[in-house]
Formats: sequence, C-alpha cells, structure tokens
Amino acid sequence: MAVVSETVSFAIDSEDKLTAARSGVMQTAHGVFQTPAFAPVATAGSVKTLLFEEVRSLGAEIVLSNTYHLYLKPGVEVIRQAGGLHRFINWGGPMLTDSGGFQAYRLSEFFDYQEEGVSFRSHWDGSPHFFSPEKVLEIQQVLGSDLIMPLDFCPPYPADEALVARSIRVTTEWAKRSKTWWESRDRLSHWGQRQFLFGIVQGSTSPSWRKRSAQELVELEFDGYALGGLSLGESKKETFETVGITVEHLPADRLRYLMGMGTPADLVLGIEQGIDLFDCALPTRNARNGTVYNWEGKLVLKGAGFKDDFGPIDERCGCPACRNYTRAYIRHLFNAKEITAMHMATLHNLWFYQELLRTVREKIRTNEFTAFKKNFMERYREEEIC
Amino acid sequence: MAVVSETVSFAIDSEDKLTAARSGVMQTAHGVFQTPAFAPVATAGSVKTLLFEEVRSLGAEIVLSNTYHLYLKPGVEVIRQAGGLHRFINWGGPMLTDSGGFQAYRLSEFFDYQEEGVSFRSHWDGSPHFFSPEKVLEIQQVLGSDLIMPLDFCPPYPADEALVARSIRVTTEWAKRSKTWWESRDRLSHWGQRQFLFGIVQGSTSPSWRKRSAQELVELEFDGYALGGLSLGESKKETFETVGITVEHLPADRLRYLMGMGTPADLVLGIEQGIDLFDCALPTRNARNGTVYNWEGKLVLKGAGFKDDFGPIDERCGCPACRNYTRAYIRHLFNAKEITAMHMATLHNLWFYQELLRTVREKIRTNEFTAFKKNFMERYREEEIC
Repeated sequence: MAVVSETVSFAIDSEDKLTAARSGVMQTAHGVFQTPAFAPVATAGSVKTLLFEEVRSLGAEIVLSNTYHLYLKPGVEVIRQAGGLHRFINWGGPMLTDSGGFQAYRLSEFFDYQEEGVSFRSHWDGSPHFFSPEKVLEIQQVLGSDLIMPLDFCPPYPADEALVARSIRVTTEWAKRSKTWWESRDRLSHWGQRQFLFGIVQGSTSPSWRKRSAQELVELEFDGYALGGLSLGESKKETFETVGITVEHLPADRLRYLMGMGTPADLVLGIEQGIDLFDCALPTRNARNGTVYNWEGKLVLKGAGFKDDFGPIDERCGCPACRNYTRAYIRHLFNAKEITAMHMATLHNLWFYQELLRTVREKIRTNEFTAFKKNFMERYREEEIC
Repeated sequence: MAVVSETVSFAIDSEDKLTAARSGVMQTAHGVFQTPAFAPVATAGSVKTLLFEEVRSLGAEIVLSNTYHLYLKPGVEVIRQAGGLHRFINWGGPMLTDSGGFQAYRLSEFFDYQEEGVSFRSHWDGSPHFFSPEKVLEIQQVLGSDLIMPLDFCPPYPADEALVARSIRVTTEWAKRSKTWWESRDRLSHWGQRQFLFGIVQGSTSPSWRKRSAQELVELEFDGYALGGLSLGESKKETFETVGITVEHLPADRLRYLMGMGTPADLVLGIEQGIDLFDCALPTRNARNGTVYNWEGKLVLKGAGFKDDFGPIDERCGCPACRNYTRAYIRHLFNAKEITAMHMATLHNLWFYQELLRTVREKIRTNEFTAFKKNFMERYREEEIC
C-alpha cells in the first residue's frame, strides 16, 4: 500500500496581483501537473486519433476519462483485470475522471434523477443501469484515477427555482454520502493510491444558490472543488459572473476545476476568476471537423481560401502538423476525407491549448497576466476564418 | 536541372540459389529503397491515419500515391504550386505513382476504353474526364514521382480471348506513345529529376498473351516492368503461375513490380517468383477494420477472445502499438469506435509488412530464403483468429 498523504498536495506558487489568477502544482500518485491546467479528453480511454505518447509530447500533464463510457465499455471488470485505468490505457500521468452522471444525463434517452441516484439506459444497447453516489466512486476506485468526482444533480438551463433548490439539496446529500464512502476506503484507490475527491458546486446562474452550494460542500471539506452546470446555454457574461461568485466561496488552498469548458477565451476568462483546471472536448472535436486554432482565432481548414496556402496552420507553433505540413495539404486531406487530417488537426489543437496554458502560467508567474489577457482578448476572435 | 543518369539505377546484390528471389537497391532522385520492397499506399496523399514521420519510422522507404485521386483532389495545379507531390505531402523519399487508369476503371460508373485513352466520371461529383497515355504522364511529371506508370488496358477476369487480345494491342500501343512522350521530356519530371517509366504487362492468366505482352514491352525498353491485371478473381495458383511465366520474359536487370498485391503470403510467393516491389491497400484497410497481422496469421481484434488479453498484438513486434498497448485495450478502442484503434492497427500492420520484407531481404542475402519460405508458409494461416 502506498503512503497516504493526509494533506492535499496542491501548492500555489504565484498569485496575480490584479486578478484571482494563480499558478501552482498539484502532486498526485501518478506525478504532478502544473496549474492552470487543461486536461485533454480521453472519453473512452483514448484521446481520439492519438496515442498517449503523442498526448504527452504535446505537453499535456493530465487527461480526463469518462466513467460513464468506461463503465459501459469495456466494463469495470476488464479494467480491474488490467490493473486499473492507467495500466489499461498506458497513461502513466495524473488522471481525472468524472462521475458519469452528466454523460448518463446527456446520452441516455431514459434518464431519471431519483433520491438514491440516477437510472439510465446505455446509449449503446439500451440496457438499464443505475448509478448511486457510492457506485460511481466504487467504479472510480477501480479505475484508480487520481482526481475523482462525486455524483451530482445538474439542472438544465434555464431551470426554475424549485428545480435548482432540489438540485442543491440532492447534490449536497450525495456529496455527504460520497465523502462517507470515500473515507471508509481510506481515500485510496483499489490499487492503494491516494485519490482526491472533489465537491461539485451547482446552482445554475443564481448567485445565492451557488453560494449555498459552495458553502455546504466546503463545510464537508473536499480535496478540491468543481464548478458544474455551466456552459449549458447561459450567456458568457453569466457564465463568468457565476464562476467569479462561486470562487469567492471556495477555500483559496484547494484546486478549482471548471467542468467541460471551454474555448481558448473561456480558459483565459476562467483563469482570471481563479480557476486551476479545465477539461473540454472542444479542441479535439473541432479538430476532427477541420477547425483549428491559432492566436487570432479559429480557421475552418476546409475553406477554399486555404487551397494554395502553403504556410503552416500557425507560424509560431511547434506541433508536428505545423512543423511539417501546410494548410493547403491538411485542407486537401480534409476534403478527401482522409483520417490523417483529423490526426494532424488534433495534434495542433491540443498543442495550441497546452501552449496557451504554458504562456498563461508564465505570465502569472511574472505578474503579467492582466496585460496578456488584454492583448489576447483583443487579438483572438471567436468568428471563424475560412 | 539535375544530372540525368542514362542507366537504370537498380542494382541486384543477392540472388537466391534455389528460387528466382533476389535482393537489391534502387536509387532514385529522392534516395534509395531496398528490394524486395513494400510500398504503403498513400492513396490521396496520406497513408490513412498516419503522419509521414510515422510511415518513415515503421521502416517504409517508398510509398505509392494514386494519380487518379490526386488529379481529382486537390488537382494538379495545387500540387504544381506546392513544388511537386514530395513537397506537397512532405514525403522526401522515393515515390511511386500509378497511371490512374485502374482507379478510373474501378471507381467510375461511366468508364470507357477508347483507342485514344479512357473516359470516366469522377466518383466525387460525376464530372467527365479523359486520360490519354500522354495526359497521365504529364500529370505524373508534375507530381514528380520517381517511379511512374503508363496508361494500360486492364481486362476484367475472366476475359475472353478477343478482349485479352485487344488489351495487349492497346497496352503496347499506349506504351509506345508513353515512351515517346517521356523521351521527349528527357525522362525528367517537371522539377528536373529523373523519372523511371515502367512497362505494364497484361494478358490475364494466359501464358501466351503474358509472354507476348512482356516481349513487346521489353522490346520498347523500359526502366522496369510492372505486372498488372492480377488478383482480380483468379486462383492464387493461377496468380503465381502467371507471375512466374511473365518474369521469365523480363530482363533480369530491371525492377519487377507486382501491382496492388497482396497478403503477407502473397509477398513471399511473389518474391519467390522474382518480384522486387509490391504495393497494396490491404494492410492499412484491414487495420482500419480491426484485422491485424502476426507471424501466425490474422487476428480479428474485435473478437471477444481478446477482451482480457493483456499481451501485445505480437510479442516480437517493435511497433508503437505493440511496445505500449495491449490487445485488450486496442480491442476495446475498436468496439468503442475510437479512431485511435485504427491508428494503432495501421502502425502495427505496416510495421509487420516492413518487418516481413526486412526478414526476407536478410534471408535472400544469407541464401536461406527457401527454408524461410517453407517455415513461414507452414506457420502462417490465412484463416482469421478471433
């Protein structure tokens, strides 16, 4: 059995003087990751198109996998036999898993929140399943991920007051059950390694409900705090106001994780509000659709404008796609429906996200974050360039 | 303008004592490749799922691209502007292109052999096109590929005597026109580099027509000779008898290329008959379907038998998929429809093909080819293992 640290292994090394941005390092049983961090999404156990050697080479230090997907395929038993998820997928670094509740809610046609947990049907074969707070932790205990998430109640947006109230009551209740179960397992994975359990703050865009949710969870004391239920249709302004209000009620020494977001601009705005960790399918999904990022915004590579553009996606980028291939070539591969196009664009987009985060960490450490943010937001346009 | 070699740069370094197998080196304007060689298929300018750095790392020294596909997308003009195909796709090594005639025949619904050439409609948009012998060389001249193929007439299998007779007459006529055109361009690409033009032997499975076709082409003197019109439905026995009979009528000092084949066993049997070069979509296409090779045969990775098989695809393999990932994991990725599965299986299958060819070259050089072949054919089974 590994030695258990009783303290949370998160150390902040710099705090921006003008904003809530901070940089730090999180130590896990599978090594460290620097914050603010972006975790590429390895939904079903792979970052789509890539081998993990590539993911690592792009600078990613932590990846996210989905409990819902892995529970359905290949199933917990195969991963147990493999010796846990790190071994099964051969990612040796820090790993984050969600509870699976959100995917059950989004992917299942027959999803139902009950007091005891959530019932849903597999999107693969329609088979019925039930996740309780204890069950999703038990799965994550076998997965052996480093950062684990409890089951929570995520209301849709917009939601009426009664539903938000219910979601907070249930989320807090499940958080309690989660903490009890996790402590009964000595906060260890099935493989004897320290797992960090987070509390997930809900409350839609309501400042009072966010405050209440945060306070109830902080009282329970978690290793870190996640912000759930955002980017569901509310305006960007509402999103980041909600983030800011929520963060005010979270302890400064715990890692803060903004779930399932976002665009490059979202990352910068979230960091400004004090967020330490992000995950999102956007850069990899966009890559597969032919949309790539640079410091000016998004390029839709299929566009005719790139037909004879023999420069790289981004002159300043060090990714394998930019070092060795042109926009014209990658555009051609997308138009010819070649899988290599998706592979190259994925390499680029994840490199760009990691480069953005490397830059932000540097700017926080040199106390230049505000100037960087201003400059970035002026140059970066959300409109697509074709 | 580059210096033009007047002799064909193919040197045989070993000849097997018991069979027609031989090993050698072909020198091109883009470097050498050792023979017997297998050229992975980069149909539309990429080996599907891979970057060329990966293709190179697997040991491939030459790749094949398809004139038909590149002519339709992105079109010759874009490749001309890029400075040729090597630059456009960033493959710096030897490259082979076909004439496009075979793809026009296989992919177009409105294909017609005429005396002047072939007319067809694009499989992308139905637009009408015409390939003459001169036109396909003009395209390949701009592509700048090292080994180029003339337009030929490939009869279906089976074909009646009259059709085979016509195909030989047309193929020889077009070969003459091709040679005239190519010599008028000093055998140089648009980029001033030596291009090697091959003659393509047709004749279905008829020994007499194959002999006649070979003799007519040899009289015209080409840099190398390709065997077309095989693996179209005839038995394996007929295929390799035809290969053997054809090779007898080809000059020993010229490279022999068996087009569009084949399985690992096909490669060994072809090499036994004196073939120096192969290309085939099989290993990459099979990879994307989840079928992978090892020295015992083919594994269908999706099979339930691999669910908890935590060994590599092949214990002796040095490819990135075998060094770092298990059958159980790759099977899971196939079942979850993850693109990474295709990527990994492609890496493995191409590595296996290159490893097979490396082994064969070594065995020819040590005069152990016959023993190797016997051993290989005893172990290698064509049936799939699930």
